[in-house]
Amino acid sequence: MSSGHIFIGEIIGTAVLILLGGGVCAAVTLKHSKARGAGWVAIAFGWGFAVLAGAYIANGLSGGQLNPAVTLGVAIKSGDWSNVPVYLAGQMLGAIIGATLVWLAYYGQFKAHLTDPEIVAGFDADSAGPMTEDGHLPGGPVLGIFSTGPEIRNPVQNLVTEIIGTTVLVLFILTEGMTNGLALNGLGIFLVALLVVGIGLSLGGPTGYAINPARDLGPRIVHSLLPLPNKGSSDWSYAWIPVAGPLIGGALAGGIYQIAFA
Amino acid sequence: MSSGHIFIGEIIGTAVLILLGGGVCAAVTLKHSKARGAGWVAIAFGWGFAVLAGAYIANGLSGGQLNPAVTLGVAIKSGDWSNVPVYLAGQMLGAIIGATLVWLAYYGQFKAHLTDPEIVAGFDADSAGPMTEDGHLPGGPVLGIFSTGPEIRNPVQNLVTEIIGTTVLVLFILTEGMTNGLALNGLGIFLVALLVVGIGLSLGGPTGYAINPARDLGPRIVHSLLPLPNKGSSDWSYAWIPVAGPLIGGALAGGIYQIAFA
Amino acid sequence: MSSGHIFIGEIIGTAVLILLGGGVCAAVTLKHSKARGAGWVAIAFGWGFAVLAGAYIANGLSGGQLNPAVTLGVAIKSGDWSNVPVYLAGQMLGAIIGATLVWLAYYGQFKAHLTDPEIVAGFDADSAGPMTEDGHLPGGPVLGIFSTGPEIRNPVQNLVTEIIGTTVLVLFILTEGMTNGLALNGLGIFLVALLVVGIGLSLGGPTGYAINPARDLGPRIVHSLLPLPNKGSSDWSYAWIPVAGPLIGGALAGGIYQIAFA
Amino acid sequence: MSSGHIFIGEIIGTAVLILLGGGVCAAVTLKHSKARGAGWVAIAFGWGFAVLAGAYIANGLSGGQLNPAVTLGVAIKSGDWSNVPVYLAGQMLGAIIGATLVWLAYYGQFKAHLTDPEIVAGFDADSAGPMTEDGHLPGGPVLGIFSTGPEIRNPVQNLVTEIIGTTVLVLFILTEGMTNGLALNGLGIFLVALLVVGIGLSLGGPTGYAINPARDLGPRIVHSLLPLPNKGSSDWSYAWIPVAGPLIGGALAGGIYQIAFA
Repeated sequence: MSSGHIFIGEIIGTAVLILLGGGVCAAVTLKHSKARGAGWVAIAFGWGFAVLAGAYIANGLSGGQLNPAVTLGVAIKSGDWSNVPVYLAGQMLGAIIGATLVWLAYYGQFKAHLTDPEIVAGFDADSAGPMTEDGHLPGGPVLGIFSTGPEIRNPVQNLVTEIIGTTVLVLFILTEGMTNGLALNGLGIFLVALLVVGIGLSLGGPTGYAINPARDLGPRIVHSLLPLPNKGSSDWSYAWIPVAGPLIGGALAGGIYQIAFA
Repeated sequence: MSSGHIFIGEIIGTAVLILLGGGVCAAVTLKHSKARGAGWVAIAFGWGFAVLAGAYIANGLSGGQLNPAVTLGVAIKSGDWSNVPVYLAGQMLGAIIGATLVWLAYYGQFKAHLTDPEIVAGFDADSAGPMTEDGHLPGGPVLGIFSTGPEIRNPVQNLVTEIIGTTVLVLFILTEGMTNGLALNGLGIFLVALLVVGIGLSLGGPTGYAINPARDLGPRIVHSLLPLPNKGSSDWSYAWIPVAGPLIGGALAGGIYQIAFA
Repeated sequence: MSSGHIFIGEIIGTAVLILLGGGVCAAVTLKHSKARGAGWVAIAFGWGFAVLAGAYIANGLSGGQLNPAVTLGVAIKSGDWSNVPVYLAGQMLGAIIGATLVWLAYYGQFKAHLTDPEIVAGFDADSAGPMTEDGHLPGGPVLGIFSTGPEIRNPVQNLVTEIIGTTVLVLFILTEGMTNGLALNGLGIFLVALLVVGIGLSLGGPTGYAINPARDLGPRIVHSLLPLPNKGSSDWSYAWIPVAGPLIGGALAGGIYQIAFA
Repeated sequence: MSSGHIFIGEIIGTAVLILLGGGVCAAVTLKHSKARGAGWVAIAFGWGFAVLAGAYIANGLSGGQLNPAVTLGVAIKSGDWSNVPVYLAGQMLGAIIGATLVWLAYYGQFKAHLTDPEIVAGFDADSAGPMTEDGHLPGGPVLGIFSTGPEIRNPVQNLVTEIIGTTVLVLFILTEGMTNGLALNGLGIFLVALLVVGIGLSLGGPTGYAINPARDLGPRIVHSLLPLPNKGSSDWSYAWIPVAGPLIGGALAGGIYQIAFA
């Protein structure tokens, strides 16, 4: 795979990942969406099938990593770090494009939601986004469509949760390639997509499971730049956790792989 | 594949697609259906498995395209336009047959629903169909079982949403064939079915995700012809959007494929 | 496959099918079940994975048909009717055993449910079983765990609904074998299981989708024989429809296959 | 496979199984979890994908049995008992580690939940854990995140339910290997994961489906040792049932396999 193919593949694949992943958050959150209030099962399957879509589309060009934590784990396993910068650049750019596409696909819904008096006043019973303990939305009423946030804000706890989830994800990807010949192609991507559904159901409760630095940081940049009325803050004080946690998890998975499986 | 096989395959396959797809909308919408109120997760999985059913049944005869936007994308990729008219004719005819079968399977439920005083008065809390912003059903109380409609009526916005969803669908199909050797057969159809679940969950909120001109236009014709009491209008003013949007999306996917993946 | 293997395979496989299929109806219906009220999505996936379980277990012995309508369609396609009686006998016996196992697994829940004053009085908001239009349970409060029943009782309508659903099921099985080399083994069973989820979501609303004569008749016999207090009638007047409808659908699928696909 | 590989594989795999399985129970149960109240469908899919995660990760080292009942059934089928102690030791140790990881991932949620006045008073409408017939939580408010418990406490009934569920699980695994060449690798694990979803939906209602002695006993030990405030009793009087029942079920499946399938 040439650098150009990797770059293009990661851009398109990550854009599709974030379009469908952010899309399901918009679908269950925003007023005048047919899927409003569909709940956590919808969110978990939506993100899983977002991985399916993005990774299969990118697969022929870049292998469909779409996640800096995966790229880190794969580099530790293979010892080949040469394409890591290209992967990361493509992933960040793709995530930014994907979050912008969510805004385009739900343009009318965003507008209706953000000018609704109840929503603006901080009350949103169907929100899938982060809420403070007193029921308010700390990052504003639509940040949860773009980026993750904690239910209980505690840097150490939130970091640990993200590390645990990402370690499972990356260890699965690294060991799958070894034992089944499926690697990041064929039905391996399908199995990873189901795992992402599972991580969402099982480990998404405390922080909303970023488990991917680009998935969180790219859309947060878009949230901060978009001309949305009443959008609230982009919660930058939390932004380092869904970057650092997944990277630590990816490295930890690479280490566990080297010790126990290699 | 002969023209005759393609024609028959697309008729039967698209009929099954619309039977199960329209069927799940009937199942969650109509009074005296056991699945009434089962919600958006049911609708998204129902349409995905409708694709699974129709495309596998048609696969041996026509490849199971069942969607003019897919046919357009495949023609752009392959350069072979010779069978396009046969595909389109079979898809439209199949969609009309499928929507009629939904009516037969739910005959009693349609009758009970459309003669219910509350439903006739415009109130239907469990409706999966399009609603205006004041809570009424613009196309009448059962149009949503046949065709899609927007939650917020804005031609440009609605068109953009349909274009985005269809581009993802067709790009997935085109690239899948390239990288995995699955094409539109074997487990490729299964993966496309899951993608359709995902598009429904993630991008279905604003317009109900036609992403297929035949899926929307064929059943709308049936809605306009069926002797249903109190069925309301067939909302023909919206009908061009779920035709034009998916075709533009299919062409766009074909173009992206040619530029980035060929 | 010898007759003995077929007989044993169909007994065990159909018993597992009905154990898990009847089990999910018990799980969402009965008082003091942790899954009470889990709804139609749970029922549809539960029956689909019941097919997965039973058919894979039986696959090495009998091919895992587990359904007289499937056996009929396969016989029409193959022209080989020699083992049909053995299949049918195994399926009926297995269904009777399976329904008895549901009773054993949920013994305490049945007892608590059927002696609950509200349930006995005919009120059961979470029931997955058949209800009359005035909200009562025509076959008593637990018949829906054993057998299907119509929401609107009309023999012609109910028969048509069962015919349509079964035709899709059997046509899928017959054509799948032709085009994918999956037949009733390998991942073919998995795809059929997903189709059964889809038929449940899409076509289960009016009659509860028997689509299998043994699935309905065997458990109905068990319902009529079990010493359950306040169990109500076994609704024998309806019993011929979920037998005749699926058989007609299986034959129709066989005919469509011969005309359009052979 | 060496004993060392088996031991490590079963530890890591069972830890992941319990992390994701206990995790989904925490996710739907605890206050300040985004998935709170997501219900039984979430629990059933969460446990199924937990099996997927753990078994694929362990597959290359140990085959990914992760369950003493499976190990027992496989030993009966193969006649090879030499590695049984290593499997059991790894499974128990892994389950203990996994339950501890659930506590770490949901540390803040456990604390908030267990100091909530309503929860402490015994009222918890969204609990997925065991409840007595008068609506209280017999094992305290979070035992259901660690271990199973009966809705109706009756040793014989509870044992029968666990035996039935485990027999289906182990018989599926034993026969799958025979007929499909999938064994406990390749897509066989994926199919077993879906079966576990199905067993949860269909047979989980009475006892919460341990169907695995290590899955229940390991986390119960962790519950008894963790310094959680107001955690309640670990319900040791029930603990033998989810150990004995699954072992009997595994042996029964082994016997049925020898008689009917070998």
